[in-house]
Amino acid sequence: MSATPTKFQERHSVEQVEEGADLAPKFDDHGLIAAVTTDAESGELLMQGFMNDQALRQTIATGEAYYYSRSRDSLWHKGATSGLVQKVIELLVDDDQDCVWLRVSVAGGASCHVGYRSCFYRRVPVADDYANKQRDGVVELEFTDTDKVFDPKEVYGDAPNSTIL
Amino acid sequence: MSATPTKFQERHSVEQVEEGADLAPKFDDHGLIAAVTTDAESGELLMQGFMNDQALRQTIATGEAYYYSRSRDSLWHKGATSGLVQKVIELLVDDDQDCVWLRVSVAGGASCHVGYRSCFYRRVPVADDYANKQRDGVVELEFTDTDKVFDPKEVYGDAPNSTIL
Repeated sequence: MSATPTKFQERHSVEQVEEGADLAPKFDDHGLIAAVTTDAESGELLMQGFMNDQALRQTIATGEAYYYSRSRDSLWHKGATSGLVQKVIELLVDDDQDCVWLRVSVAGGASCHVGYRSCFYRRVPVADDYANKQRDGVVELEFTDTDKVFDPKEVYGDAPNSTIL
Repeated sequence: MSATPTKFQERHSVEQVEEGADLAPKFDDHGLIAAVTTDAESGELLMQGFMNDQALRQTIATGEAYYYSRSRDSLWHKGATSGLVQKVIELLVDDDQDCVWLRVSVAGGASCHVGYRSCFYRRVPVADDYANKQRDGVVELEFTDTDKVFDPKEVYGDAPNSTIL
């Protein structure tokens, strides 16, 4: 791990933020930026989360994905419990610098606490497909993946589920 | 466009939300869920935005991407100004249903208001690469794309830039 923490730049112009080489992230009212994580090989979307200032610094310094867990209200080293650490192959920032994109490889091949490879294992029908399948506006989600990579109970034991109703 | 608006289900259990076929999205305190948009062919991340209730319904009904613009505080039919409409090839929802993934094809091939194909055209160095390149913790972003697909001034004219400092 690098000894020197990353310094973020002040945001002083649209041109600087959008077209420049300064790293000047915009954290929201809760001190967070969005983080989108895809599998570096397959391109599959694995998860969408958030980072605070510290999570972004740690990710940059270590090359492993850190997030801010809103449900646990704390810094979250992804994989610290499950062993499914995400190694950052490439980190990119978007135009207005309120979102980062992590292209990662995942030890164990799974990123979802439910046990699936990706958090996105259900499809919502749209357009004609929606019109044909809806009944009074209600649709059924369609599973695109039904094979869990791991058993959440074995990995997380009795730890509280992170899903909030 | 379908005559019947989508009905979202009440969220009553973790099992229903994570493992069921109910579409029961969780909108946050601002009435929004995160939306991640990738190019259906290349897998490239194009943008990360937000949807409110109406944007999600419109996306489902029409098969074109609608978002909620936080900077303009209004429903946003992506491409309405620029013509760069996003046709939704596949729409997926994540485990706890607070995020949707849009796999789209884009008329014109660009999704970024700055003119690039993707909003993510700059890389942040991490780990050893960071350690080697940083000076007093300051790094320079590296451009991964330097060819703009369109000229924002031609497309948007004098409309205010959406980037907020």
